[in-house]
Amino acid sequence: MINKLCIIGVGLIGGSLSRALRKQGYCKHVTGCSRDASHLQRAVELGVIDDYDTDITKAVQGADMIVVAVPLGAMQAVFTAMRPALAEHVVITDVGSSKASVVEAAKAGLVERYQDFVPGHPIAGTEKSGVEASFSELFLQRKVILTPIAETRPEAVEAVRTMWQTAGAEVVALEVSHHDDVLAATSHLPHVLAFTLVESMAQMGDRDEIFQYAAGGFRDFTRIASSDPVMWADICLANHDALLAAVTGFQADLDKLHSAIERGDRQALMDLFTRAKQARDRYAEGQTEQ
Amino acid sequence: MINKLCIIGVGLIGGSLSRALRKQGYCKHVTGCSRDASHLQRAVELGVIDDYDTDITKAVQGADMIVVAVPLGAMQAVFTAMRPALAEHVVITDVGSSKASVVEAAKAGLVERYQDFVPGHPIAGTEKSGVEASFSELFLQRKVILTPIAETRPEAVEAVRTMWQTAGAEVVALEVSHHDDVLAATSHLPHVLAFTLVESMAQMGDRDEIFQYAAGGFRDFTRIASSDPVMWADICLANHDALLAAVTGFQADLDKLHSAIERGDRQALMDLFTRAKQARDRYAEGQTEQ
Repeated sequence: MINKLCIIGVGLIGGSLSRALRKQGYCKHVTGCSRDASHLQRAVELGVIDDYDTDITKAVQGADMIVVAVPLGAMQAVFTAMRPALAEHVVITDVGSSKASVVEAAKAGLVERYQDFVPGHPIAGTEKSGVEASFSELFLQRKVILTPIAETRPEAVEAVRTMWQTAGAEVVALEVSHHDDVLAATSHLPHVLAFTLVESMAQMGDRDEIFQYAAGGFRDFTRIASSDPVMWADICLANHDALLAAVTGFQADLDKLHSAIERGDRQALMDLFTRAKQARDRYAEGQTEQ
Repeated sequence: MINKLCIIGVGLIGGSLSRALRKQGYCKHVTGCSRDASHLQRAVELGVIDDYDTDITKAVQGADMIVVAVPLGAMQAVFTAMRPALAEHVVITDVGSSKASVVEAAKAGLVERYQDFVPGHPIAGTEKSGVEASFSELFLQRKVILTPIAETRPEAVEAVRTMWQTAGAEVVALEVSHHDDVLAATSHLPHVLAFTLVESMAQMGDRDEIFQYAAGGFRDFTRIASSDPVMWADICLANHDALLAAVTGFQADLDKLHSAIERGDRQALMDLFTRAKQARDRYAEGQTEQ
């Protein structure tokens, strides 16, 4: 049970977490914080938070749980600003898509309070953003990855684990760098490919005509290109090394495909497509297709 | 109204077309044809066709409409085999995803009967294949592109247009090479990227673990990698030139992205992602998201 939950950045993720926890009666009071009072006012009207403060030192006062759900580029400033106002037994966590950069930001910003911080990442979201898009079921049966490091208090990890489980998620623990490698492959690479494909097509001749002939496969394939550009630019910078390795690996595979098409190598194409279909079908078996 | 419709290749597309036309009462009799009698027997049991013959010269006998729905690599052999058995007033069309190669195959296989052939391509489908996956609504509000050439009889074009409209589709006409360029960009490129991404990921360390952390965006992005490998190897060979140009263009754009990530150029990333999001959102406005 949380007495005062403080959510910094009340968007799709922060808003959905608040909705889920309130639905379960798991927190008495939720205070929102961000730089934009009109967004926070809207979150109050939507019943997502109880009240808000745009001053971070006031917003975190007396909170026993703080969830930082701001873009990666803003993390360190948020940690630095909250540090002097933290309650004694507070637990702090975040929802950033890249963990090494957040760990670094938390160390620099929280200093001696770093032990109260649990790096976290819910593997959930949609291509939409903002509190209007938030809903309490977002985390149901989704994975939340926690990447505690040596200094992290075990009770803080337990508190964050219980919070996410209450929101309906399955919580797993990974090493920081392993998280970043896996997410670069499964999430960050597909997003940059989708953005690049749409960019590539938008440059071709009459783009309205081109998009007009796109079918369902294209719609699904490019849905993630509607994601928030600021958030994704931040992720590219924050998870720089792992993403660059994933992009480089993909480029090598695409070069192989290019030359298989160029030399008309039917067998090579069949082999590649068959392996990929098998891997994708096996993956889909464990998922609920919608 | 069609007296005898002959569908060669009774899979997702051929089966769905037959279902749609029968539902509208638009054809008196549907004969299926393929090399596999057990598939055809299944199609009869499902009520998709009335009867079948694995001998193409018998199957097309007396047909006033023939729809060739076989993989691109099999087209020419099918055209060659049917030619001696064609009825006088028959109209022939196909559903291939690449048109220049089909036009060539039809010229070589149909010879003097080439004037009765209307190259066609329904922009519809799912990642599933086979007659079991067919359904009568597949073409509702979908585009069907016809690419008639100089020799094609105008009445043949009209007959094919009316057939697809009866199945619920919107019929448009394009030049052969323009069709192939547009489809390379909107369909063939996304498919080979999805196959390549899954292949790329399947090679990384423990692939089951990697796929385990994939979220909804990945699922949507890679759905088309579950498509039929034979069909897609054929498309890569058949639409060789246009696809190679599209892949090359994408590689250049991906190189630019790679170097923007490498040098940590936030502005370049923001610009690219913002342009892509705008183009994708504008495209989505005209579509029904599911």
